[in-house]
Amino acid sequence: MENAIVLIQSPDRKGLVARVSEFIFTHDANIIAADQYSTDPSNGRFFMRLEFCFNESRLAPKTLETEFASLAATLDAQWEIHYATRAMRMGILVSKQDHCLFDLLYRWRSKELFVDIPFVISNHADLCEIVKSYNIPFYHIPALISDKQASEKQIIEIAREQCDFLVLARYMQILSSGFLNDFGKDIINIHHSFLPSFKGADPYRQAYERGVKIIGATAHYVTIDLDEGPIIEQCVERVSHRDNVDALRRKGRNLEKLALSNAVRAHCEHRIIRYQNKTIVFE
Amino acid sequence: MENAIVLIQSPDRKGLVARVSEFIFTHDANIIAADQYSTDPSNGRFFMRLEFCFNESRLAPKTLETEFASLAATLDAQWEIHYATRAMRMGILVSKQDHCLFDLLYRWRSKELFVDIPFVISNHADLCEIVKSYNIPFYHIPALISDKQASEKQIIEIAREQCDFLVLARYMQILSSGFLNDFGKDIINIHHSFLPSFKGADPYRQAYERGVKIIGATAHYVTIDLDEGPIIEQCVERVSHRDNVDALRRKGRNLEKLALSNAVRAHCEHRIIRYQNKTIVFE
Amino acid sequence: MENAIVLIQSPDRKGLVARVSEFIFTHDANIIAADQYSTDPSNGRFFMRLEFCFNESRLAPKTLETEFASLAATLDAQWEIHYATRAMRMGILVSKQDHCLFDLLYRWRSKELFVDIPFVISNHADLCEIVKSYNIPFYHIPALISDKQASEKQIIEIAREQCDFLVLARYMQILSSGFLNDFGKDIINIHHSFLPSFKGADPYRQAYERGVKIIGATAHYVTIDLDEGPIIEQCVERVSHRDNVDALRRKGRNLEKLALSNAVRAHCEHRIIRYQNKTIVFE
Amino acid sequence: MENAIVLIQSPDRKGLVARVSEFIFTHDANIIAADQYSTDPSNGRFFMRLEFCFNESRLAPKTLETEFASLAATLDAQWEIHYATRAMRMGILVSKQDHCLFDLLYRWRSKELFVDIPFVISNHADLCEIVKSYNIPFYHIPALISDKQASEKQIIEIAREQCDFLVLARYMQILSSGFLNDFGKDIINIHHSFLPSFKGADPYRQAYERGVKIIGATAHYVTIDLDEGPIIEQCVERVSHRDNVDALRRKGRNLEKLALSNAVRAHCEHRIIRYQNKTIVFE
Repeated sequence: MENAIVLIQSPDRKGLVARVSEFIFTHDANIIAADQYSTDPSNGRFFMRLEFCFNESRLAPKTLETEFASLAATLDAQWEIHYATRAMRMGILVSKQDHCLFDLLYRWRSKELFVDIPFVISNHADLCEIVKSYNIPFYHIPALISDKQASEKQIIEIAREQCDFLVLARYMQILSSGFLNDFGKDIINIHHSFLPSFKGADPYRQAYERGVKIIGATAHYVTIDLDEGPIIEQCVERVSHRDNVDALRRKGRNLEKLALSNAVRAHCEHRIIRYQNKTIVFE
Repeated sequence: MENAIVLIQSPDRKGLVARVSEFIFTHDANIIAADQYSTDPSNGRFFMRLEFCFNESRLAPKTLETEFASLAATLDAQWEIHYATRAMRMGILVSKQDHCLFDLLYRWRSKELFVDIPFVISNHADLCEIVKSYNIPFYHIPALISDKQASEKQIIEIAREQCDFLVLARYMQILSSGFLNDFGKDIINIHHSFLPSFKGADPYRQAYERGVKIIGATAHYVTIDLDEGPIIEQCVERVSHRDNVDALRRKGRNLEKLALSNAVRAHCEHRIIRYQNKTIVFE
Repeated sequence: MENAIVLIQSPDRKGLVARVSEFIFTHDANIIAADQYSTDPSNGRFFMRLEFCFNESRLAPKTLETEFASLAATLDAQWEIHYATRAMRMGILVSKQDHCLFDLLYRWRSKELFVDIPFVISNHADLCEIVKSYNIPFYHIPALISDKQASEKQIIEIAREQCDFLVLARYMQILSSGFLNDFGKDIINIHHSFLPSFKGADPYRQAYERGVKIIGATAHYVTIDLDEGPIIEQCVERVSHRDNVDALRRKGRNLEKLALSNAVRAHCEHRIIRYQNKTIVFE
Repeated sequence: MENAIVLIQSPDRKGLVARVSEFIFTHDANIIAADQYSTDPSNGRFFMRLEFCFNESRLAPKTLETEFASLAATLDAQWEIHYATRAMRMGILVSKQDHCLFDLLYRWRSKELFVDIPFVISNHADLCEIVKSYNIPFYHIPALISDKQASEKQIIEIAREQCDFLVLARYMQILSSGFLNDFGKDIINIHHSFLPSFKGADPYRQAYERGVKIIGATAHYVTIDLDEGPIIEQCVERVSHRDNVDALRRKGRNLEKLALSNAVRAHCEHRIIRYQNKTIVFE
């Protein structure tokens, strides 16, 4: 028996759920979880996540996919299928700060996150030994100001084949639109502010200067517009006038770890559908 | 066109979603929202909330219900159907404290809560004028210690016919199991603690004595076991050593209003399914 | 016996606390609460809130103030003194939305907020009857686009003498810098977003378009720069893709009421010191 | 220059703050932070935390302490003094679950927590290698059901001299009152529920069975009454019917790490005063 997860989005129309669930039923599969959402039932967009269990010996994944493709075509639907036993391969990019990296490594090793980590890339060598102690390949690729393209080319050579998605775990470099286009897969970033507040550099200092009473962290998909990509998860915490910039950073690290790991988990469990500049995150 | 909401629970089995959504589809109705949940997909219990739009002139509610009853019988399902244009009738019981009452009245008048309020009953006369200023009938039914049954009989004579459910908006009397059996419909209570902590009397004082760092409020369905009914909603807030009992009460009132109004809204929108001693609350 | 509250800010220096507490002690007053904060102990700014109880028959407030002024002068301190038995007079400006107004009125009548409300001014007549039912004078001053100055002049004639501070309880007009200068006292505004995110118009729609996972509300002092004044209080709540703009508005109203009432309470209890563009809020 | 922190508690009386701050001033020390709190200003208990900077070459710590002892005696005050440059020595007890241990180790190594960790003791050998990789001595002391006293004796022989306080980082053994008396120093425990809810074993299962909508974790000082000691910190998170026991455990681990590390930090920064069965935690 194998578990599959299908993510669908399509124009909304009558009978969509009936068609899809009928498909599952006639293939003798068993729905484990089903979530759907419509932006507007009369004339909107329909989103569905379907997790079901099927007998591989009687229904080959290949067949399943071919037949589902036919169904999807009649529904004008975009779709993707994932198999629960296949771990997503998560490449990690990091600079010097290590709290998000450690948090991901811990959750990976303790099996809280069902992922493989094929590599960690950093523009600094500082975290090399630590990463290697986890038996994960570490690549030091300095960020060349003079030749950013060269650095990115090295990254893409590693990442394109080896991973299904990238996580920027406090990677302090901005990836070019060329890189994003070449890579083509999902990239999750953690921004250390409650977006859209405090985009750009040193958001905790910005938050301190503005005198906010709550700080936050935001995990989002990376798009060409920096800090503008679809938000996946946000976490917040109360602060006061007593919290200086260092205290905000300390409290913020907890938020960054939590927002990023929640986002990664939702991504790896195929709970997220991207639409326009937003996310539908099924729980 | 009319919107209907069906709540279903049944033993989980293959094809359930397909059967139900097929039913909707063949009756030319349009699914507006669908949520489902299984306790355990292999051998568990299945819960579903289905909101759909249908043409009353072509499908009479009576027919819809009869046919759905047939379907449900084959699925061994419990079910109920509600129509979105029919406001739930919410009776309110209150003592002297008025913050939850006012909050409900405000949300009713501002149409945030889609309910009718056929009456307010209190064991004290204090809030009579206020309630009447909203053109809502007010009944003063003193809680007779010597003859509790007599008081409850008066309440039930008013409540049984006039309301679909009761809200205890800080009603400081305990309803007898006789009352609960006679009334037979849902009753929502707000308990001013983070249950199961601090059951019983004066929970804010209990919280103060225990020195908790977070307080809460809990909205739950009333059952024969006091403060033990299925929890619908809980809200919490941080407190510190500086908060004396009065400060806890003040902060707590905000939580009580929020938890109770959230619970009432979920109930009125038919988002709640009760199962054993718990609630499934579909968002 | 009378309770006084002194708010002090000054350059930080050795012996400040000793000097001030000695002053209280030698006047035979009893400290009830004392809070202090320094931005930076070595070369920063010092802030203190001192609540103490003194015998009016032996120490006249006038004398207390004169002597404290002498002390403050030697410390290069700004200071203000308030007496706990004198309620702050809070004028309210409102447009059509009434949730914050009602919330403030309820907290005033239930004595949760120790304030007087000398008047409510609105640019619409809608809320006239309601306000009058609380026996509070209501002034309808339309916001004239052609002659904003005339409207503001009417407001200031009422507000200048009759209130100690103003609350903009969802007042949808922007007060001119001329008004702010003329009025000269504190004005508290509630902005329906988590500032600095979503300044300006229709912030819930902005939040919806951006796809944030948490929304907020911000109470702040009004300054000439719109939505840029010192933040007093912020409240937040989790939202999801299921929340459309109306749902955000509904959830947001709870946040607005909470943030505004918390800010007003802190202001009325003289817990806030403004410094640069921030607030120190002593709990 | 050295920073000292004094924690004081005494019967409240006039002039207390003046006396203490005068003491600091006359010794030419500079107050860096001062917090105080009175349970009841008229006849209550007074608590103070004072952080100040003094010149060791002109005021020896020994002298400071002797003189402060004299002052404290006249005030009938309990007090303790700590020096900011001396890291607290934190012994850790752990069983098999490692998330709290790792979190503490990470915060220690990254210098977020200013502590020394002289040893980790476990009743299982599982975490030996990991702990040793941090160059921290690891002791495997099996919990003998037949002879609990023997196990505890081994622990105390290590702990009594080598640490200033103990942390039970998910140590699944109950320490005897004999141990507590012998050890005599503070012990911080993390309980994986929102106390006083769900004391005892398997609190996440208890929470699941009860159907709560929010779960929590509680860091508290250990006393002879299990799960009844003074609460230091509590953290909470929203859950839903979708969260099974494993999901509660997963979410709960984040709360446990946060509550425990916040409590440890407050303890190490000498921000906590214990009184009766509560804590005053100065921020």
